Amino acid sequence: MIASIGVDIGGTNTCIGVVTPDGVVHDRAQFRTDEYIDGAAFADRLAEVVRALMTCHMAKAGKCDWAGLGIGAPNGNYLNGSIEEPPNLRFKGMTPLVALLTGRLDLAKIELTNDANAAAIGEKIFGAAKDYADFIMITLGTGLGSGIFVNNQLVYGHDGFAGELGHISVIPDGRYCGFGRRGSLENYCSATGIRRTYFEMIAQRGGKTSLDHKPMGEITAKDIADEAYAGDPIAQATMDFTGRLLGEALASTALVTSPAAFFLFGGPVQAGDVLLKPTRISFEKHLIPPFKNKIKIIESALPLGDAAIIGAAALVAS
Amino acid sequence: MIASIGVDIGGTNTCIGVVTPDGVVHDRAQFRTDEYIDGAAFADRLAEVVRALMTCHMAKAGKCDWAGLGIGAPNGNYLNGSIEEPPNLRFKGMTPLVALLTGRLDLAKIELTNDANAAAIGEKIFGAAKDYADFIMITLGTGLGSGIFVNNQLVYGHDGFAGELGHISVIPDGRYCGFGRRGSLENYCSATGIRRTYFEMIAQRGGKTSLDHKPMGEITAKDIADEAYAGDPIAQATMDFTGRLLGEALASTALVTSPAAFFLFGGPVQAGDVLLKPTRISFEKHLIPPFKNKIKIIESALPLGDAAIIGAAALVAS
Repeated sequence: MIASIGVDIGGTNTCIGVVTPDGVVHDRAQFRTDEYIDGAAFADRLAEVVRALMTCHMAKAGKCDWAGLGIGAPNGNYLNGSIEEPPNLRFKGMTPLVALLTGRLDLAKIELTNDANAAAIGEKIFGAAKDYADFIMITLGTGLGSGIFVNNQLVYGHDGFAGELGHISVIPDGRYCGFGRRGSLENYCSATGIRRTYFEMIAQRGGKTSLDHKPMGEITAKDIADEAYAGDPIAQATMDFTGRLLGEALASTALVTSPAAFFLFGGPVQAGDVLLKPTRISFEKHLIPPFKNKIKIIESALPLGDAAIIGAAALVAS
Repeated sequence: MIASIGVDIGGTNTCIGVVTPDGVVHDRAQFRTDEYIDGAAFADRLAEVVRALMTCHMAKAGKCDWAGLGIGAPNGNYLNGSIEEPPNLRFKGMTPLVALLTGRLDLAKIELTNDANAAAIGEKIFGAAKDYADFIMITLGTGLGSGIFVNNQLVYGHDGFAGELGHISVIPDGRYCGFGRRGSLENYCSATGIRRTYFEMIAQRGGKTSLDHKPMGEITAKDIADEAYAGDPIAQATMDFTGRLLGEALASTALVTSPAAFFLFGGPVQAGDVLLKPTRISFEKHLIPPFKNKIKIIESALPLGDAAIIGAAALVAS
């Protein structure tokens, strides 16, 4: 039996899974990314969890040929195997994660890419993008990530950093972000950005909300999307504002590579039309005529949490 | 002897040239595009000029095997050979130019692409982009066009319309443009946009300018760039403003495909540092850290006027 290991490093959690060639995740483990401020300590923990997961999988499935380990990480660079200047991780600068893991794990192949690139590969191979040569995957998590396919190939760019749409400026002099810049898309349309908009809406409108009973620090973008779906007006206004900004940004991005579709992935997307409807209306409104009524905005077909793991595993399985 | 015919359709002029496989343009002709409001009448005139040019070339060079005719046009769609909804041409809607010419010219191959895509192909094959797998060509003419190479391939997108960077919004609620939208990059950083900025600067600052002697309608962006080079403060302020906006827009665009270089082409670029210096400073300032000090901004190596002709010819010569 053949299997790969997929690792999805997010700003909050690192999720690991064993993936078979049919794209099914068989075992899972996770630990908190934000407990680590040092790349080497993080690599120690990751290697330990991976070894435990391999042992656990073989105990159930028998002997296994390991194709390798694929990693999706914020600002992960496929070309050199490093995480470089990640805005949402506590280990800063350059972390040569593939090199660090090579000394800690006995695996034939260890590769790393951007977490959103990994999700895009997952969508292309196992999800709803199978029949699309030109598409863009958008992931709404702690940040806003993207992976771009052109002519059936993932776009890496000259240095491996293509597809950083979260940093496109959408509101001049807008919210502050990690790089000292202002008004970036991910400050508004990531899961984190949706929370910030929700608090802004409460500030502006006052009054009670359907989440008043919940500890503030535990309120997630998924909660806000769910409350919008259930009819809460402040949550609806939040998702509407998010969708309008996201649609405008996608319309600008469409001008660059002219994709046949955008696939949206992440917790807030699961509430469906409360986000997708304003996004689609704003998207069409901001497109120039030659682009109108041609480009789809589609929910990711990958199960939440698994897209990045499956995509990362596909990096080494293929 | 083998030769191709390259056609560059601009908002003002249509330029035609015979191009040999060494990338040299041997004969040239041109006529005004803006005299035509109908695609069929335009195709009649173009076919007539092309036939005359072929006859003229063979009279000098002897018998010639014609590889075909390549066309670069605003909103030219490579995939269907049509010009679709061009904002800067007087013939509107859909003009199936390849089909119209096929009935009027006896040539084995007639192909059409975006004028800026044609320039990008010219830069890649005969210009300064030979060694670049990932780059973006920016053409500053009546509009602002772009052609994008990813991994040594021109990006067409799912429908042939990739690379419409001129329509990216840079100033919300800014200048009006052809589509009823506002604040698009080409309203500021095309040759036309530079003229508008120049008049805005005169309005704001008052006083004399070094172009006061010239009929207003004849003042070109090249004139303004030249006066900036010569030291005129209003012209310098115009080019500085243009460069700062262009640099910011290129920094946003770099986030999408992460090119190794941008190549700038067009009359205003020939004045050199008066445009390139503020562009480069603004570009670096607006890049996020992983992108800084990596991406070049380079003047096109193709002679003004010939880039699009050579690129268009390369469409059918290769």
